[in-house]
Amino acid sequence: MRNSKVVTLDEAIRRSGLKDGMTISFHHHFRGGDKVVNMVVARLAEMGFKNLHLAASSLSDVHSPLIEYIRQGVITKISTSGLRGELANEISHGLMKEPVVFRSHGGRGSAIASGVLHIDVAFLGASSCDELGNASGCPRSENAKSICGSLGYALPDAMYADHVVILTDDLVAYPNVPKSISACNVESVVVVDSVGDSSKISSGAIRDSKNPRDILLAKQAAKVVINSGYFKDGFSIQTGTGGASLAVVKYIRESMLEKGIKASFALGGITAHMVKLHEEGLIGRLVDVQSFDKVAAESIATDQTHQEVSSIEYASADHAGSAVHALDMVILSALEVDVDFNVNVLVGSDGIIRGAVGGHPDTAEDSALSIIVCPLLRGRIPCIVPKVTTLITPGKGVDVVVTEYGIAVNPRRPEIAERLSAAGLKLVDIKDLAAKAVAMIGEPDPIPFGDKVVGLVVDRHGELLDEIHNVLD
Amino acid sequence: MRNSKVVTLDEAIRRSGLKDGMTISFHHHFRGGDKVVNMVVARLAEMGFKNLHLAASSLSDVHSPLIEYIRQGVITKISTSGLRGELANEISHGLMKEPVVFRSHGGRGSAIASGVLHIDVAFLGASSCDELGNASGCPRSENAKSICGSLGYALPDAMYADHVVILTDDLVAYPNVPKSISACNVESVVVVDSVGDSSKISSGAIRDSKNPRDILLAKQAAKVVINSGYFKDGFSIQTGTGGASLAVVKYIRESMLEKGIKASFALGGITAHMVKLHEEGLIGRLVDVQSFDKVAAESIATDQTHQEVSSIEYASADHAGSAVHALDMVILSALEVDVDFNVNVLVGSDGIIRGAVGGHPDTAEDSALSIIVCPLLRGRIPCIVPKVTTLITPGKGVDVVVTEYGIAVNPRRPEIAERLSAAGLKLVDIKDLAAKAVAMIGEPDPIPFGDKVVGLVVDRHGELLDEIHNVLD
Repeated sequence: MRNSKVVTLDEAIRRSGLKDGMTISFHHHFRGGDKVVNMVVARLAEMGFKNLHLAASSLSDVHSPLIEYIRQGVITKISTSGLRGELANEISHGLMKEPVVFRSHGGRGSAIASGVLHIDVAFLGASSCDELGNASGCPRSENAKSICGSLGYALPDAMYADHVVILTDDLVAYPNVPKSISACNVESVVVVDSVGDSSKISSGAIRDSKNPRDILLAKQAAKVVINSGYFKDGFSIQTGTGGASLAVVKYIRESMLEKGIKASFALGGITAHMVKLHEEGLIGRLVDVQSFDKVAAESIATDQTHQEVSSIEYASADHAGSAVHALDMVILSALEVDVDFNVNVLVGSDGIIRGAVGGHPDTAEDSALSIIVCPLLRGRIPCIVPKVTTLITPGKGVDVVVTEYGIAVNPRRPEIAERLSAAGLKLVDIKDLAAKAVAMIGEPDPIPFGDKVVGLVVDRHGELLDEIHNVLD
Repeated sequence: MRNSKVVTLDEAIRRSGLKDGMTISFHHHFRGGDKVVNMVVARLAEMGFKNLHLAASSLSDVHSPLIEYIRQGVITKISTSGLRGELANEISHGLMKEPVVFRSHGGRGSAIASGVLHIDVAFLGASSCDELGNASGCPRSENAKSICGSLGYALPDAMYADHVVILTDDLVAYPNVPKSISACNVESVVVVDSVGDSSKISSGAIRDSKNPRDILLAKQAAKVVINSGYFKDGFSIQTGTGGASLAVVKYIRESMLEKGIKASFALGGITAHMVKLHEEGLIGRLVDVQSFDKVAAESIATDQTHQEVSSIEYASADHAGSAVHALDMVILSALEVDVDFNVNVLVGSDGIIRGAVGGHPDTAEDSALSIIVCPLLRGRIPCIVPKVTTLITPGKGVDVVVTEYGIAVNPRRPEIAERLSAAGLKLVDIKDLAAKAVAMIGEPDPIPFGDKVVGLVVDRHGELLDEIHNVLD
């Protein structure tokens, strides 16, 4: 093809004009199966780049090779939604000089759109791409090697980065239709063996849970949904990561059928459960920033009523048209909830970073009703606490907390408490839950934090929300 | 819905912050059936606005009411791709103080993206829209009143205008999926009785021709296509407005079937002919900046392999990923072609503006092969001329001119001439065609142009290409 943009990775990097100190970006749609971050950073290291700012939509266990590149000074700054595994552990112990900047998905989209987070070169993996750069997370030929579905987190990078490189494991005939990323936003296309292992999309935090406590919590949360006052024809719903929150949809299905209630749309990370209800006609539209499993990815590939949205369209606080503004209910998980309904989904009660901000604060703030499902204890770790270790989602956006010891409703929402109470659900004061946790396992030792700031939590409006300190051994 | 953006037109105008002297924009996807331009400008006139710059993707016969608003000083500047009818006639005679700026579709997209054409408030008609502003040219409910298909010309306005107002005749439940215009780009939604008469989409320049000369020209052009060297499996094609050029597809179909040749994609204004071949499997993908008839609009509404593209993605010279860069062949019409292969599609040989730049120069320049179908004479008006009245498409991008008196090949493309000659097609020197026209009807009188500049033709790279003078009676 005339004007083909296909080049080697080295040539793409050279053409991009990347220089030491610049910002490179990546998406995390392959989650635990991602191969692009490690591949590109390894090559940048070999080429001698230093002081790069890595701005990923999120990072996970699979990115532990970054530790070495951080030690070498290849990567000296990170912006991300989450960190997990050995990389998170090392950073929590003070690996980096500069603190990692954590943003929500909507916050990242806004920061990119406003220029606060300026991306010099985006390296974006795609399951199909043509020679001019029309790219998609959906397979489009018999040679397809991967599928990740929505490229919602990559779209702001594609639109706003100075230079965009698509990495693909299936170069398809022009035009790749329908496209997610437009060729007009792409400078180079690089063909690689594999951009990601699709079997690992639904790994980690979005695994389908068989844990009996998760199932109990999911069933309780479903009762909250059904009796909340928002469960009526045309309602909308999102479920976050975490086994219990993801499973809620299964348990409201029966009520939907019984009462003849249909949802207008489901939002966010879309799961096989959502697709099933959609295909049954119980959910009208799927609005998908991230396909949480292969079933969802396969659905978005073929179903016109299953729509990809960018993280800006999903959850930006700066855009009154973002989908969270139309969301009735969100069911979310938590590492910790405190007595002021503040939520922590990022830092473990041992002080080690082990999670992701995700869309948690975005959806909690803008939805009409936010429900947190969270056990009182995980092993000997209390989850309902006097004060969260790290503030991620301010309590003013959190309405209901579902635990196996009862349901706490934020005093700011007395009408919700009334409805749940009238339905016979057991309501408890969140302070009593925190006290019960202490009564059961005793006061936990304080976390041995040091003086070094290893992480900054920036809220979706761009304000500093909290600092994360290093953990001492 | 919380955060609904639905307001009255007056309120939308007030919220937009529109002031005298600002630029307002419109799309022309309803072509002769458009109701938005007249409706909005009438209201702006009543509200007392003055000195507005009207930047439409195109204007046609139906917009003659603008004459009065120009006289009143409501509209004092126009940017457009085309002008027709009484408005064009009046402007040609010197109605406006400032010259009208004419740009190609790709040129307009580039000018909007680069900020050269800054839009303060875009008023964009949509056949469906939800309360947050997700808009489409496709119907989405049983109450739908209109359909125009692709909103490709409106997408740059939606993306780059400071303020976007969607006018719709069908407010549908959120979320309107799939969307063309994103709610994140929309400030207000106005519900009106009708945004356009869909039965008039295929009026005027894109009517299906039954004219025997058009059919002859189309058949000749089909022979050029087939013998050009570009007619092979995976080729791509676009046909412009004008009966003969639109009809070419009908006549290459048989050859495609016979030789087992399939097109990878058809581009541009998409017609029922294209849709038919696509549905037969003869054209792989439809890349649609404008649905030229109702069949095309209905196809884009339901077929995932029929893709909407913005005018930037279609034909921008600034974006190496725009689709014209991948286009093999384009078949275009002309009002005049001169002996240097320059083409005029805008100004009649009487000096009156009666056409549109459209995608003519975009596709001619970037396609591998451009074919112009043009009769030698239209009545007593010569179409092959010594020098075009107005330069729209420079001859360096024009490869073949098909007339009923023979086929002229640009001397810059000797390999094409060889192939056509080998296939037994009658080649003529374009100078001989021009001489024949004069021999048949005599030297035409010179056009009585005055000294006033009524139009400026800006090429797709942003350079001034030609001036149009007023016509004296």
